[in-house]
Amino acid sequence: MKFAIILGNLGNTCDRFLSSGYKEQPTKEAMIKQAAEIDGVTGIELVGTWDVTKDNTDEVGELLAKYDLECVSIIPDYFSQKRWGKGAFSSKDPKIREQAVEETYEAAEVAQKLNCELINIWPGQDGYDYPLQAYYIEERQWMKESLSRACNKYPGIRFALEYKMKEPRTHSFLARCADTLLMAKEINHQNVGVTIDFGHSLLAYENVAEAAVMLKMYGEKLFHFHFNDNYRAWDDDMIVGSVHFVEYLELLFWLKEIEYSGWYSMDLYPYREDAKRALAESVAFIKGIDRLLTPELMNEIRELIKEGDATKSTALVRRLILK
Amino acid sequence: MKFAIILGNLGNTCDRFLSSGYKEQPTKEAMIKQAAEIDGVTGIELVGTWDVTKDNTDEVGELLAKYDLECVSIIPDYFSQKRWGKGAFSSKDPKIREQAVEETYEAAEVAQKLNCELINIWPGQDGYDYPLQAYYIEERQWMKESLSRACNKYPGIRFALEYKMKEPRTHSFLARCADTLLMAKEINHQNVGVTIDFGHSLLAYENVAEAAVMLKMYGEKLFHFHFNDNYRAWDDDMIVGSVHFVEYLELLFWLKEIEYSGWYSMDLYPYREDAKRALAESVAFIKGIDRLLTPELMNEIRELIKEGDATKSTALVRRLILK
Amino acid sequence: MKFAIILGNLGNTCDRFLSSGYKEQPTKEAMIKQAAEIDGVTGIELVGTWDVTKDNTDEVGELLAKYDLECVSIIPDYFSQKRWGKGAFSSKDPKIREQAVEETYEAAEVAQKLNCELINIWPGQDGYDYPLQAYYIEERQWMKESLSRACNKYPGIRFALEYKMKEPRTHSFLARCADTLLMAKEINHQNVGVTIDFGHSLLAYENVAEAAVMLKMYGEKLFHFHFNDNYRAWDDDMIVGSVHFVEYLELLFWLKEIEYSGWYSMDLYPYREDAKRALAESVAFIKGIDRLLTPELMNEIRELIKEGDATKSTALVRRLILK
Amino acid sequence: MKFAIILGNLGNTCDRFLSSGYKEQPTKEAMIKQAAEIDGVTGIELVGTWDVTKDNTDEVGELLAKYDLECVSIIPDYFSQKRWGKGAFSSKDPKIREQAVEETYEAAEVAQKLNCELINIWPGQDGYDYPLQAYYIEERQWMKESLSRACNKYPGIRFALEYKMKEPRTHSFLARCADTLLMAKEINHQNVGVTIDFGHSLLAYENVAEAAVMLKMYGEKLFHFHFNDNYRAWDDDMIVGSVHFVEYLELLFWLKEIEYSGWYSMDLYPYREDAKRALAESVAFIKGIDRLLTPELMNEIRELIKEGDATKSTALVRRLILK
Repeated sequence: MKFAIILGNLGNTCDRFLSSGYKEQPTKEAMIKQAAEIDGVTGIELVGTWDVTKDNTDEVGELLAKYDLECVSIIPDYFSQKRWGKGAFSSKDPKIREQAVEETYEAAEVAQKLNCELINIWPGQDGYDYPLQAYYIEERQWMKESLSRACNKYPGIRFALEYKMKEPRTHSFLARCADTLLMAKEINHQNVGVTIDFGHSLLAYENVAEAAVMLKMYGEKLFHFHFNDNYRAWDDDMIVGSVHFVEYLELLFWLKEIEYSGWYSMDLYPYREDAKRALAESVAFIKGIDRLLTPELMNEIRELIKEGDATKSTALVRRLILK
Repeated sequence: MKFAIILGNLGNTCDRFLSSGYKEQPTKEAMIKQAAEIDGVTGIELVGTWDVTKDNTDEVGELLAKYDLECVSIIPDYFSQKRWGKGAFSSKDPKIREQAVEETYEAAEVAQKLNCELINIWPGQDGYDYPLQAYYIEERQWMKESLSRACNKYPGIRFALEYKMKEPRTHSFLARCADTLLMAKEINHQNVGVTIDFGHSLLAYENVAEAAVMLKMYGEKLFHFHFNDNYRAWDDDMIVGSVHFVEYLELLFWLKEIEYSGWYSMDLYPYREDAKRALAESVAFIKGIDRLLTPELMNEIRELIKEGDATKSTALVRRLILK
Repeated sequence: MKFAIILGNLGNTCDRFLSSGYKEQPTKEAMIKQAAEIDGVTGIELVGTWDVTKDNTDEVGELLAKYDLECVSIIPDYFSQKRWGKGAFSSKDPKIREQAVEETYEAAEVAQKLNCELINIWPGQDGYDYPLQAYYIEERQWMKESLSRACNKYPGIRFALEYKMKEPRTHSFLARCADTLLMAKEINHQNVGVTIDFGHSLLAYENVAEAAVMLKMYGEKLFHFHFNDNYRAWDDDMIVGSVHFVEYLELLFWLKEIEYSGWYSMDLYPYREDAKRALAESVAFIKGIDRLLTPELMNEIRELIKEGDATKSTALVRRLILK
Repeated sequence: MKFAIILGNLGNTCDRFLSSGYKEQPTKEAMIKQAAEIDGVTGIELVGTWDVTKDNTDEVGELLAKYDLECVSIIPDYFSQKRWGKGAFSSKDPKIREQAVEETYEAAEVAQKLNCELINIWPGQDGYDYPLQAYYIEERQWMKESLSRACNKYPGIRFALEYKMKEPRTHSFLARCADTLLMAKEINHQNVGVTIDFGHSLLAYENVAEAAVMLKMYGEKLFHFHFNDNYRAWDDDMIVGSVHFVEYLELLFWLKEIEYSGWYSMDLYPYREDAKRALAESVAFIKGIDRLLTPELMNEIRELIKEGDATKSTALVRRLILK
C-alpha cells in the first residue's frame, strides 16, 4: 500500500462562516516537511495554483525531492477562483470553458515535469444550484467535449474524474460513481477514469466497496482513491475511521480482491484539529485494517460473502474487534 | 399526453405494521372500472401474478376491452413472493435466477397477447441489506446475464428497467439513473431501456429532469415514466404535486423538449386515501402544468435556462402561479 | 446489564411488498422458548393483541414463568389495526381517541397481572402524511390529553413514550427525543418518560448518546432503550453492531456514566435472517462492548471527552479494536 | 407583514473552497441603500462585528435613519472569529464562555441604542464534530448558564435562540425546534424564545408550520423568523420559493392563524446571484402567497385541515395555482 496526502490538508481550512480559517497557514516547506514525517506517507497531491504552478514547478519539485516525496497527482484548481463560479468545463461562457481546458493543459505540463502521471479532476463548480437554471443537454455536452480535449492531448497522463453529488453547487454534473463512469465511457479514451472519494460515495448512499467494484468491472476505471470520513449526509471530511469501521473493512477487502494498485490518499478538512496528527491517525487506521486482512481472513470473508448470511458476517466482524 | 395508472394503486395497500392494509380490496373488475372512470386515463399497467397470469390473460384482456383501456405495461412480480426474498435475477441460487428469467418470459407472452409492448422490470429484491453480504462481481454479472436472456428472446418487447436506491433491500443493484443506464448499455440490446419513477429519482437526490435528459442523450433509453411524490427521503408514493411543483414544471418542460412520447403513468400507494380520487388528482395536476406549457412559455423557459439566472427563473415561476 | 427482546422479532416479518412475510410464523411458545435460549436474555417485551390480551394474560404469564423470563414491557398495539390508520391518541375522531385510551388501560391491567411495570407507547399512527392535512394545535392537544389520562389512572405504571420521526406516517407527532421529552413535561406526571430506539435516534440525525444524556439531565426521563442498527436514513431495524461501532461505544459509556439501570432490549426486523441468531448476535455485540468498558477505560474516555481532542479519541478507539 | 433582510446578505458570500467569495464586497452604505430600495423592506438585521460594534453604533444608526430602516435585530458574531472555533457559550474554556457572554452584553447595549428589542443568537460553533469529543452534561449546562446570564441582565431585550442541526459543527447543541424550546424553558426567563429559520427547519425534517405552532402552544416562544429555501438536505440558503411552495403556503396560513406579529426576515446566501434581486424576489414570493390568503381561503383551509382529506387539500392547492 502506498500512502499519500493532499498537501493543503496540512494548511489552514476555512468554512463559509469563518473565511479566515480556524488556524494559521504554515509555509509550503513546513507542510511538505510535516507530510514527510507522517509514518507511511510517501506521496503528495498538489493543488494547482495553491501549491504549484508552471512558474514554481522546479522549486516545488526540489522540495519534494528534499523530503523524499513523490508527486502522486496534480489537482487543478477549478473551484477556488471567481472565474469558475458558474462552471468551468461546462460554463455557459465559451471563454471560461477554454480556460478550464488550458488549466488542464498546464497541470499536465506540470505533472510531466514532476514525473507525476495522474491529474485528479474535481470539477466542483460544474453543475447548477436552482431548478430551471441549466440547459442540461448543452452543458453536459460541453463538459464532455472540454474533458475530451485534455485526454486527447496528453495520452501519457491518466485523468481521474472525482465525483461529488453537491457542494459548492447544489447539484454537480459528475455526481455519483455511475454518472462519472458513464461520462468516462462517453469520452472514450483509455486514459480517463474515476477517483472515488470515500466520503463523497457515502454522501450518495453508495456502498463504497460496490462503487470500487463497478469501476473495476465496467472498464478498469478505478484510477484513484481519496480517504476520509463523514456522517453520510455531507462531505464532512473527517479523520479516516472516526465514524465508519465495517465499511472500511469491506472496502479494503475489495481493493485487495480487485487488485487495486493505486495510491491510498488522505483527503481531510481538519478544520479545528492538528492536521498532521489527524492525517497520521488516518493512515494508522487504514494500516490497522490492512493488518487484519491476512490471507486467511481474505478467504474467510470471501466464503462469507458468497454465502450471504448477514448474521455470520456481523459475527465475524465482532470477533475481529471485540474479544 | 397519454395517461395510465398501475391497477394495484386502486386496491388495498399495506405497510410492514399493518399487513392487512388500511382499506378493503375491491374486485379486479371494480378496479378496472374505476380506472376507466378517471378523467384522461386510457392505459393500465398490470402486475404479474396479482393482476394477470398466463392463465387469465384472455379474461383480463376482455375486461380491458370492455372498459376501453389499453395495457401499457406488464410489471412482473419479482418482489412479493417468498422465493424472491434474497434476490431474483441476481440470486445466489441459480434455480431462482432461472425462475426470474422464466417469469419474464411469461410476462412477455402475456404482453404479446394483450398487445402490450412494454415490460417494466423492477427487480426490488435484487441487492443486499448488510455490509459483507454480497459478492458484487458475481451478483452483478448474474443480474446482467439474466436480464440479457429476456431481451434476447423477445426482441419485439421493450424492457424498461426501473431503478430505486433501496427498499425492500437497504441497497439495490439498480439504484440510480446512471447505474441503470450503465446496466442497459452493458446488456447492449436496443430493446432495453430505463423507467424513471419520479419519487425514486428524488430519493436519490437526482434532479428528475436531468435524469430524463441523460437517458435521452446517452442512447435514447427513456422508455417509461412513473409519477408520484414524496419528501425526498423515502419512496412515500404520495399524490402527484402534493409536495413538489417547480420540479414537475421543469420535468414536463424537458419531456416536451426531448419529445418524450411514452406514457405518463401514475404509481401511488394511497394507503389511507380514496385511491380513485388520489389518482384523478394526480392526473389533474399533470394536465394543469401541461396547460401552462404553451409554446410561448416553452420559449421563455428555454431562453431562461440558456441564460441561467436563478432569480429570473424563480420570478417566472412565481408569476405563473401567484398573481 | 439486563437483556430483553421484543417477542415479535422472532416471528415472521413482512414489508409493504411481501405482506405474507419472508418466513413462517412460529407458535408463541416456540418463540418464547427461543428467546429463553438466547444467551443473556432474561426479559421479554410483548405487543398487545399480537402477543397478549386481557383474555390470555394468565396463559402468557405461565409460559413466561415456564421459561424463566420476565415481562419487561407491554407495547400496546396502536399501529397494526385499521381503526388506528388515521391516528390513535390524536385521531380527529373522539371515539378512536377513547379507544386508544382504553387500549392503554387494558395494557396496564395486563402489565400489572404480569408484574410488569412498564408500558412502552409507540404511537406510530399519530401524525400526518401530507401538507395541509393536520390541525396541529388540536391534534397535539388531544395527544397530550389522551396520554395524560393513562398516566393519571395508573400511577404505579411507568409510561415510556417511544419516538420515531416517521413511518408509517410521513411525519409523527412524537418525532424526536426533545419533542417527546417536551410532551412528557407537558403531561407532567412523574410516571411518564421516554424510550430511545437507537435506530430512530440515528434517523433523526441525533447523537444517541447525547439524546440519552438529555433525558437524564432534564428530568430523569430515560425510561427504556431499544437497540438495533441502520444506515441513518431509515429505520432498517438491522442487527445491533452490523453498521455502527463507535456510536455504540459512546452510548454504552454514557449509559454507565449516567447510571442507566433499565433494560437493554433488542428490537430488530430480521426480515430474511434467522431471527434467533440475529438477536443473539445483537446481545453478543453489546456484551462485547461492555467488556471493553472497564473502569480504566471509563476513566480514560472521561478524560478524553473533557479534553475534546478528536484525534486522540479516534486513536483510542482504533487501538481498542485494531492491534 | 413587516419585511426585513440580514444586511450581510447583500455583501460578498464565500464558501470553503472560494474563501474570497464569488462577488465583490460593497460598502456598508451601499448595502443599506440597496436594502431600502427593495420593495416592502423596512427592517434590517445587523451582524455584530461585521456590521455594527459599540464603536460605530451611532454612525450605523444614522445610516439606518437616513434610509428609513428599522433595526430589527442584532445577531452577535459567535461564529466568524477564531476564538469561537471550539464553542462560545459552551466552550470548554471558561474564558471563552465569559467572552461569549460579554459579546452578548455588548450586543444588548448596541441594540438598546438602536431602539432594537431583539437579539438573535445563533451559537453556530456550540456543538461538536466527532464521537467521543464532548462531555454533554457539562457543556449543555454551561450553555444554559451562559445564556441565562444575558437574559437576566437585559430583561428588556428579547433573546431569540436560532437553531440549526449542523454546520459549521457536525452537531449543534441547539439543533432542532424542540431542543431549543427545551433550552428556553430550562433558562426560564420570559424574554428568551426561539427563531425559526425555514431552511434549518426543513433540514431537520421538521414541518416548518408545525414547528411554529409548537413554539406558540408551549409557551409563546416564537420570537422571530428567517426565510430562505433549500433542498431539505443542507442549509442551501436559496431564494425564498425557489424550491418549496405548499410548505410556504401552509406556514403562512399558520402564522396568520397563530397571529404571529414578528418580522418576516430574509436570510439568504446568494453566492452567485445579484443579491438585491434575489432578496426582492424572496419578498415578492411571500407577498404573493399572502395575497392568496384571503379570509375566505383561510376559512377554507381551516375546514380542510380539520377534515384531513389529503386529496382535497392537494386539489385546493392545485386550483389556486393552476387554472
